[in-house]
Parts: sequence; structure tokens; C-alpha cells
Amino acid sequence: MSYTLAELADKVQGTVKGNAELMIDGIGTLEKADVHALSFLANPKYQNQLESTSAGAVIVKNDELAQLVDNAIVVSNPYLAFAQLSHLFVPLTESWSGVHQSAVISSNAQLGDDVLVGPNVVIDDDVVIAEGCVIGAGCVIGRGAQIAQGSRLYANVTLYHDVIIGEKCIFHSGVVIGADGFGFAPASYGWEKIDQLGSVVIGNNVEVGANTTIDRGAIENTCIGHGVKIDNQVQIAHNVVIGDNTAIAACTAIAGSVSIGSACTISGGVGIAGHIEIVDHVHVTAMSMISKSILRAGSYSSGSGMESTSKWRRSVARIRQLDNMAKKISKLEKILNKFSEKG
Amino acid sequence: MSYTLAELADKVQGTVKGNAELMIDGIGTLEKADVHALSFLANPKYQNQLESTSAGAVIVKNDELAQLVDNAIVVSNPYLAFAQLSHLFVPLTESWSGVHQSAVISSNAQLGDDVLVGPNVVIDDDVVIAEGCVIGAGCVIGRGAQIAQGSRLYANVTLYHDVIIGEKCIFHSGVVIGADGFGFAPASYGWEKIDQLGSVVIGNNVEVGANTTIDRGAIENTCIGHGVKIDNQVQIAHNVVIGDNTAIAACTAIAGSVSIGSACTISGGVGIAGHIEIVDHVHVTAMSMISKSILRAGSYSSGSGMESTSKWRRSVARIRQLDNMAKKISKLEKILNKFSEKG
Amino acid sequence: MSYTLAELADKVQGTVKGNAELMIDGIGTLEKADVHALSFLANPKYQNQLESTSAGAVIVKNDELAQLVDNAIVVSNPYLAFAQLSHLFVPLTESWSGVHQSAVISSNAQLGDDVLVGPNVVIDDDVVIAEGCVIGAGCVIGRGAQIAQGSRLYANVTLYHDVIIGEKCIFHSGVVIGADGFGFAPASYGWEKIDQLGSVVIGNNVEVGANTTIDRGAIENTCIGHGVKIDNQVQIAHNVVIGDNTAIAACTAIAGSVSIGSACTISGGVGIAGHIEIVDHVHVTAMSMISKSILRAGSYSSGSGMESTSKWRRSVARIRQLDNMAKKISKLEKILNKFSEKG
Repeated sequence: MSYTLAELADKVQGTVKGNAELMIDGIGTLEKADVHALSFLANPKYQNQLESTSAGAVIVKNDELAQLVDNAIVVSNPYLAFAQLSHLFVPLTESWSGVHQSAVISSNAQLGDDVLVGPNVVIDDDVVIAEGCVIGAGCVIGRGAQIAQGSRLYANVTLYHDVIIGEKCIFHSGVVIGADGFGFAPASYGWEKIDQLGSVVIGNNVEVGANTTIDRGAIENTCIGHGVKIDNQVQIAHNVVIGDNTAIAACTAIAGSVSIGSACTISGGVGIAGHIEIVDHVHVTAMSMISKSILRAGSYSSGSGMESTSKWRRSVARIRQLDNMAKKISKLEKILNKFSEKG
Repeated sequence: MSYTLAELADKVQGTVKGNAELMIDGIGTLEKADVHALSFLANPKYQNQLESTSAGAVIVKNDELAQLVDNAIVVSNPYLAFAQLSHLFVPLTESWSGVHQSAVISSNAQLGDDVLVGPNVVIDDDVVIAEGCVIGAGCVIGRGAQIAQGSRLYANVTLYHDVIIGEKCIFHSGVVIGADGFGFAPASYGWEKIDQLGSVVIGNNVEVGANTTIDRGAIENTCIGHGVKIDNQVQIAHNVVIGDNTAIAACTAIAGSVSIGSACTISGGVGIAGHIEIVDHVHVTAMSMISKSILRAGSYSSGSGMESTSKWRRSVARIRQLDNMAKKISKLEKILNKFSEKG
Repeated sequence: MSYTLAELADKVQGTVKGNAELMIDGIGTLEKADVHALSFLANPKYQNQLESTSAGAVIVKNDELAQLVDNAIVVSNPYLAFAQLSHLFVPLTESWSGVHQSAVISSNAQLGDDVLVGPNVVIDDDVVIAEGCVIGAGCVIGRGAQIAQGSRLYANVTLYHDVIIGEKCIFHSGVVIGADGFGFAPASYGWEKIDQLGSVVIGNNVEVGANTTIDRGAIENTCIGHGVKIDNQVQIAHNVVIGDNTAIAACTAIAGSVSIGSACTISGGVGIAGHIEIVDHVHVTAMSMISKSILRAGSYSSGSGMESTSKWRRSVARIRQLDNMAKKISKLEKILNKFSEKG
């Protein structure tokens, strides 16, 4: 995995400044890159690091910045160029090829060309896996599930029956797609299970982080749009609908029948109550509690940041006195009004 | 999977209005059901949908409502009837039967009649699996674990050694039962592990959602009562005791030695601090922090819902000024008192 | 597993009071231990239980307490002694020995002496597993991963390629180490994936709880120090650095590039925002939101505990009125000032 600076610049429609033939074999931070590594300056506030970096070359935004280093690729969006070039330096992540002999594959499952099936994979009846998919070791693909071309499941992913996965998706280890939604009817004898008869339909270019769970719908399907990016340990309940290119950070929990628009960003640890609607272009900050619909684009928050425990205890005590404080203010206002009347 | 309306009504002790011989092959929502599907009206506020629904038949509460559609099942609790009928329309979830030849089963494990063991299952010494259980592909059942009749483990569930599971339980993929509780004694050299010598005992009719974890006890057992329903990604620490028919929504975390009563509902994202007692019939709303015992039945909450980020920043700043505000009020009161004295 | 009281006392440098030859075959709580079990009194507030306990012997802090029971081990730190003795009473957790024939092991992986490899384990190329490690059933060890001596992976753990694990570590089931960090560059067409080119490096004596995820770094590595203890369902994002002997309770989420010092304790359900620094000896209470760096040792908190839902609704409403209340107070102050001026 080694490229000339010219080759790399070409891949991101950039311009080389300096030695176009410089060989680059990796990507590094400005602080730690060595002379064979390419670095990037995405945030102007780190500009002073350009002078001290040992990186062989740096991706920068303009010629002025390029002059601060020996070798550079100039491109309008250095961070995006870095992302695009990162694809070139991924090491081999697994050594298997073809269909491993230890895999258990139903005789009526359909596998496209160039599908890689790792050791101990289990593929049930009527599964369809299209061209170029990679199914990591230990994955279990339930009856009738469909995976479109170029998608990758890392080791130990579980897909329940009948889930539908789009093209070029990535599922990390421990992901569970299509388990039953949490649905029960109260009865005199306890809880009666509502069998979850819908499924999960996931669009193209979706990435789902490790140990995230997406439940199947109760009657209709749970639906994840194209280009949606979901971090680790996110919980998506039954019948949630998520619009294209929305990104959801780790440990966020989305309750049943929530509808989220496109191009939203939901930070980590957020909780979204059931049956809520969130429109396009909404941004929710970390650990917020969303208990009513958000019908206007914008940024939303709740929760309060930490203080020293002793100061925090006083604040909490004061919050519990708020009702009392409000009443005192009213009383003071009345007294003052009386004074004023008396003149 | 196709039934006459009369057959379905019979299963829920309901009365048919309209065509008793109508063939039903699925369940749908009032909005989207087709003419072969059965729908239901659980919430009177959707009554107007009865007029526009395309559903072949609808489960309703009374004759008056039944008159708004061509075909109906009249039953006192339509939501419960829907739950009960949902069981009839579950598709085949896996195609294996018997004990799959790829499973690794200790020679001294005991399997009852009609136990289904999927591909690549691992069953260690002294395990007992009773009649009618289904063990999904890739599950690992630790030494000495016991599973009572009719329970089902979906793919990739892990049971540690010596855990005990009741009848007719359902465990979704990624569930881990019986991992070590988080117990360490502080020592001069760091943390000394406390080996967790208890186990986990789970009652009958318990459902546990995907990627939920229930730890084994430190000395005594962690105990989950009958009919308890636990959603995805819930964490139940060592020595927690949960009473019958309590339901716990996703992403809730329950710390060690908590005792929760029967018939409680704990919403999603709740945190419950260690060694707390919660009595029967307590309801906790989403994302609440429970840091002291709840000794009276009722509904409990904490946390605040989102605002626009700019407004929220002002609120948070004001909370930090509360102590100051309270002091100002006191000062105003004193001044006014002086005024009053002066007359 | 049976020891004389003298043998047990010897292992913790304690002194026997009473019958040194008493046979002990387990550990129990003061409340429930039987006559063959050893119990301990760690917290003086339970001292009255010494009189009623049925335990065969009790670990206590001094001779005075020892006189309240028939048999005792006297040791300066009873809780630590209990932890150390707990190791003696762990039952057999799995019955396999050697390398199970169903395991799929690359021909160029290196396994040290006395490595136990359970059924259906998958070990990819260039993996190195040192002496005395235990790899539970169904684990998948990615290409080039290294595990130092004496470490244990329970069933169904996934290690991605090139992760490095220290000595005597314990990983519980469902753990995923080395999945891609959540890194994407915004582009006109959606999100461009940033391939995660770093890895994860974990020190010695680290324990990681069930279903916890630790992501690989974007460019540099994610680093976990020696003696770190991590509970279940914790999320550690890319490029986090955690110092030695820090303990992190369940369901805490740590965002990217956070640096946490040594000997910290982070309680459960805490959220830590990205790029934050936390120094040594910081303690964070449960469910706190840490959105700025903590540069002084001490205890920190946020969040508020539950109230009855009706009272809580009033508190939340009052918080939303805070801005208004503050303005009223200012107005009152001004009026009173005017009164004062008038005299």
C-alpha cells in the first residue's frame, strides 16, 4: 500500500505542491506522522502545527498553507480528501476467501458472484446474498433475509428472518437486526406478547455500529433510509422510520414508531420517546431527552453539565425549592404593589 | 396461514358481525391493511379511521363500532385480542429441525423431546434442556445451565455456567446471561477481582430483548420473576431481584442489589442506583434517575425535556444562578419587612 | 473445593480465632451463609449481624469483633481478604480442554502452551495467543490480533484485526474490540466514511464486561491502561485514552478522543463528550453529563433525582420560568431601591 503524492492528489482532484514522486505509505496526524505519511489540516486553528510536523506531505486548503510545508496536496475540502484517501490504506481485515467449508448454508440460499462467507457462518433457507458481499465469521443470516450487492457484515452479526439490507452497507460485530419489537398487551394474567409481524428494511450505504439493535416492526416495517450512519450500541425500536443521511451517535435510544427526517444529526446518549416526529435538518445535542415532536429544523438540547458534587447538591436542592421561590416572588410583588398604591 | 373470521373470533371469545366465512391471511393497521387482513381499533381516538379502512375486518369493542365496517369481531378488549391473534400469523423463523449435525453437544448434556438445536450451537457438560426448547444457531450454553420446557433462544445467545431459565421464556440474539457482576475490592496495587459465585435464576414466561445483559450474583443469585418482560440493551447487575410481571424498556440500567417489586413499569433509559428498593406497582418515566428507594406505588420522574439549544443554554445558566437568586429573594424579604415595621 | 480455616487465613495473612481445622467449602453472606461457609464483615454498620449469623466462620477486622462469633479470620482489610479468597471457590466454568477440533485456526496463527480453544472458535492469520490463554466457544479473533499470557475470553467475544491485548485480561461475552470508530466527513452527497486506520491497545489485568464495545482509532490507537475495569455495555469511542486502574461502571458512553487519567471512578450511565480531558483521581457520579474538561481531582455530578411525576412536572415548568423569575427579582430590586432613595 504505497502511492506517489501525484497518484493520491489525482484521486481527490487536488494539486501537488513539492515532490510529486514522494512515496506515501500511510496517513498520520500532524503531530505524529512520519516522513512516509500523509497528514491533513482540516481545522485552521491547528495551522501552527504545519511548521513542526514531520509528515511527508500534508493535505491543505490553499497555496498559502502549502507554502508552510515541503510537500502538499491542495484541495478545497481537506477533511473530505483525507476521508477519501483513507480507503487506500486499510490493511487486510480477514484472510478468508470464497465460501469457507465450515459455513452451514441452506441448499436453497442464493449467493451471488464473489461472495465471501467466513468460517462458521450460518445461512438459512431462502436467503439471497448479492454479488460482492462479505459475511464475517460466525454471522447468522435468518430465513428469507436479503442482502444487496457489496454489503459487509463483520463477525458475529445476527440478521433475523426476512430482513432486507441495501447495497454497500456495513454492519459491525454484535449487531442484531430484526429481533422482536417490545410489544405486549396488558392482561389480567400479566403481559400477552404481540408477535412482531413486520420486518426491517435498510437502504443503501448504511453503516451500523457494534452491538446496535434494530427491531422488526409490529405490523408494518422498521425503515432505515439511504446513507444513514448509526454508531455503536444504538437502540432503534419497532416501526421507527429514519430519513436519508441522518447520523446517530452511540448509545442513543429511539422508542417505537418515532419518525426522524433526513440529514439530522442525533448525538450520543439521546433518548427519543415513542410516536414522536422529528423533521429534516434537526440537530440534537448529547444526552437530550426528546419527549415531544420537533417540527422545525434547528438545534435542540436538554440536560445540564456537571459541577463539583457539593455545588451540584446545592443546585438540586434549589431546584426542589423553585415552587416556593416563585411563590415568594409573587408575595413580594403584591406587597410592593400595596406600598405603591399607598404611595 | 389463513383463517375464517369465525375461526378467529372463536379464538378470542368474540362475536362476528358480517361475513363469518371471510378468509383472513394477516394482520394490518387500519391505514394500510388490505381486504384479506384483519385490523383492530384499540384507541377510540382513531375511530374515524373505521370509515376509510380497507381492512377485510376489524376487531372492535362494541356493536356500535362494528356497524361502521362491513365485517368485525366484537370483543371486550380489542388490543388483547389482537395480541392473541398475532400468534397465528408468525412466519417460519428458521428452517432447521432436530439437532443440527454441526452443533457441539457434550455427551452428558440432557436434551428433552422435540428440542431443536441449530447449527454451530455449543452445549457444555451437565446442561439440561427440557422438552420443546429451541436453541438458535451459534448459541453457547455454559456448563450446568438448565432451561425449562418450551423456551426459545434466538441465534447467538450466551448463557454462562449454572444459570437457570424457566419455562416458555424467549431470549433474543446477543443476550448474555450470567457474566460476572462488576465486583472489585480496592487494594494498594489496584483492584482485586471478587469472583462472582452466585448465578442467575429466571422465572417462567420471561422475555429478554436483544443484547441485554443480566449478571450473575456475587454470592447469592440474581433473580428475575415470572412474566417479566425486558427490552433490548437493558443492563441488570449482580444480585438484582425483579418481581413478577414487571416490564423494563430499552437501555435501562439497574445497578447491583436493587430490588424491584411486581407489576412495575420502568421506561427506557432509566438509571437505578445500587441497593435501592422499589415497591410493587411503581411506574418510572423515561430517562429518570432513581437514586433513592421508592416505597409508595405511583409514578416517578426526573430529567427535563428538550428546548431549542439557545433557550436551553439560558435555562442552564439560570439554574447555576439559583443559589444567588434565592439569596436575593431573602434580601428583598428582609428589606420589605423593615419597611413594614417602619409602617 | 474445601479448605481448613487455617489454610484460608494463611492465604490472606490473617489470624485464626476459634477452630483452625474447621472445613470451609464456600462463601456466604452473614444473613444466609450455612455452617460450612465463610462470611465477612466489611461494613461496621452490619456488626449486629455477627450475633445472628449461621456462618461457620467470619472474616473480621479485629479481635473484638472476632469474639462475637465462634470462628473468625482476623485481617486488617476483610473486604479485600474476601475478594482474594473468592478465587478459591469458582466452580468449573467450562469443560473443554486443549484445542477443540471444531475450532477454525489459521495455519500461521501462533498458540502458546496450555492455550484452551473452545468449540467453534475462529482464529485468523497471524494471530498470536500466548501461554495459558482461554478462548471461549464462538469467539472470533481477527487477523493479526495479539493476546498476551493468561488472558481469558468468554464465549462469543469478537476481536477485530490487529488489536493488542495484555496479560491476565478478562473479556466477557458479547464484547467487541476494534470495530470502526464513528468517523465520517460531510460531503455534498451525504457522509464519506473515514476508514479507521488505528487499532486498540489494552494493558494487563484489564476486565471488560459483557457487550461492551471499544472502537479502533481513526489514525492513532485507542489505549486502555493496566488494571482498568470496565463494566457491561460501556461504549468507548475511537482514540480514547484511559489511565491505569480507572474503573468505569455499566452503560457509560465515552466519546472520541477523550483522555481519562488514572485511578478515576466513572459511575454508570455517564456520558462524556468528545475531546475532553479528565485528570487523575476524578470521581463522576451516576448519569452525569461531562461536557467540559475536569482538570482538578474531586467528585463531579449532574442530573437530578426522581420525584413523583406530578411534583416533577411542576419543577420542570418552574425551570422553564426561571428566566422570567430572574427578571422579576431584578424589577423588585429596582423598585425597592427607588423606595429606599425616597427614604
